Amino acid sequence: MKKVNPGDIVFSYKAGKIVAFSVVIANAYTSDKPGDFPKAGDGWDTNGWRVDVEYYLINNPIKPKLHIDKILPLLASKYAPLKSNGNGNQAYLFSITDLFAERLVSLMDAEVKISLINATRTFFDHNAAEQEEEKLKSCPSILETEKAQLVNSRRGQGKFRSNVSCIEPCCRLTKITDMRCLIASHIKPWSECNNFERLDGNNGLLLAPHIDHLFDKGFISFHDDGRVMVSSSLCKSILSAWSISLINVGEFNGKQKKYLEYHRSFVFDKFV
Amino acid sequence: MKKVNPGDIVFSYKAGKIVAFSVVIANAYTSDKPGDFPKAGDGWDTNGWRVDVEYYLINNPIKPKLHIDKILPLLASKYAPLKSNGNGNQAYLFSITDLFAERLVSLMDAEVKISLINATRTFFDHNAAEQEEEKLKSCPSILETEKAQLVNSRRGQGKFRSNVSCIEPCCRLTKITDMRCLIASHIKPWSECNNFERLDGNNGLLLAPHIDHLFDKGFISFHDDGRVMVSSSLCKSILSAWSISLINVGEFNGKQKKYLEYHRSFVFDKFV
Repeated sequence: MKKVNPGDIVFSYKAGKIVAFSVVIANAYTSDKPGDFPKAGDGWDTNGWRVDVEYYLINNPIKPKLHIDKILPLLASKYAPLKSNGNGNQAYLFSITDLFAERLVSLMDAEVKISLINATRTFFDHNAAEQEEEKLKSCPSILETEKAQLVNSRRGQGKFRSNVSCIEPCCRLTKITDMRCLIASHIKPWSECNNFERLDGNNGLLLAPHIDHLFDKGFISFHDDGRVMVSSSLCKSILSAWSISLINVGEFNGKQKKYLEYHRSFVFDKFV
Repeated sequence: MKKVNPGDIVFSYKAGKIVAFSVVIANAYTSDKPGDFPKAGDGWDTNGWRVDVEYYLINNPIKPKLHIDKILPLLASKYAPLKSNGNGNQAYLFSITDLFAERLVSLMDAEVKISLINATRTFFDHNAAEQEEEKLKSCPSILETEKAQLVNSRRGQGKFRSNVSCIEPCCRLTKITDMRCLIASHIKPWSECNNFERLDGNNGLLLAPHIDHLFDKGFISFHDDGRVMVSSSLCKSILSAWSISLINVGEFNGKQKKYLEYHRSFVFDKFV
């Protein structure tokens, strides 16, 4: 438990199936046994290690035993999670190689692959932005008030927001104009911007919160002429549950187009 | 310029009308005259003070001159923004009394009143949460990893998110289940919670980003039995632009009901 690092992936194995995966979000820490721990754990020490994770259930779990021929060559001779006949070994946590993990993932649904990639990406993107913000805050050559502007811009607030609203009058897709319900979203992500780009109104769109979410995560993007691009990794059922019609949202200006090019290349559908 | 404080409201007066209001977001700082400053400012010093604001245009600007009888008793004898005949005095920034400001606002559309209240509220809520987070980070009696959990919970991440997803399977309103598109939203706001409530899965809902926004800002709430409440301050056009149907979202459990009671009392429609 002490060897896991934030960002590591953990697969959960139960009754012969890989039923979930998790992204580790912090280092292990000492903790009492949870109160709702099952009877089977009565013999365990009260004090142990705890690791917090972001937990994702898998809809169509695979049974590794059915694929044991593909997995066997990658099993370690000691401390492997599976026996050579494909049955599970009993222990709380096993370390596996990258190759083994990739093989397991290759056996899973496309949906799992995508959500695995997205979960890790969300984790690392957030960490990158946090680190950028810390770097910014401790930079001696930037004035405090400028720092505040730059930090606010990460949240789509302040100077960046007012700069964007001078250029974009409404949500490009849902057309609402009420500023109370609009997010000022960076086209080129904040953590990948220089300080000029962080406040540049042309590097932003005013979007409804759900459209902002899809754009920010790379599920949608826009062509220069305003046509909407939809990632194949987005379940179409979401577009219909949210009644999003893929209208042409109107052409972008020259400066917006540069930022959009970045979005299409490095954010849209990035890992799929 | 040096006397303004974060959270102060500034009204913009142009050609006889109050065309916008702003919320000050940081103290004044020295700055060069902007490059795009109009010709009329040629005589101004290059170096001056700058104040960053969150800027809101007013759709139906009022002309104070038309209401001068109501305003006159509140005008200061010196350094007032208006002359006694209702015409404007020329200067960059005037200080006015709370009473004067309230009188001006009372003459404006309900829409302006509401957006003014919401803009200030967003500002102060955000500041309250920032301060709470700083307090938390510097609290000596909480373990570092617990601090990380509590900070993550403010962003709807980590332990709080997984706790919520054990209770709520999907967005109550749009019914989507894809975790990549769901926000773990606190029912009782994070900044008003104790540390137990911050991580309590019963204090959360999994919501689509736009539903989360409406719930978080108090535009919508829920009855214990699942009926949706909509604030009168929410333009109905937004519900239709986002195709939100006000279905019964299903009853809540006993613990959720306690938190919802708080939401209905202190978040929903709070300032209207």
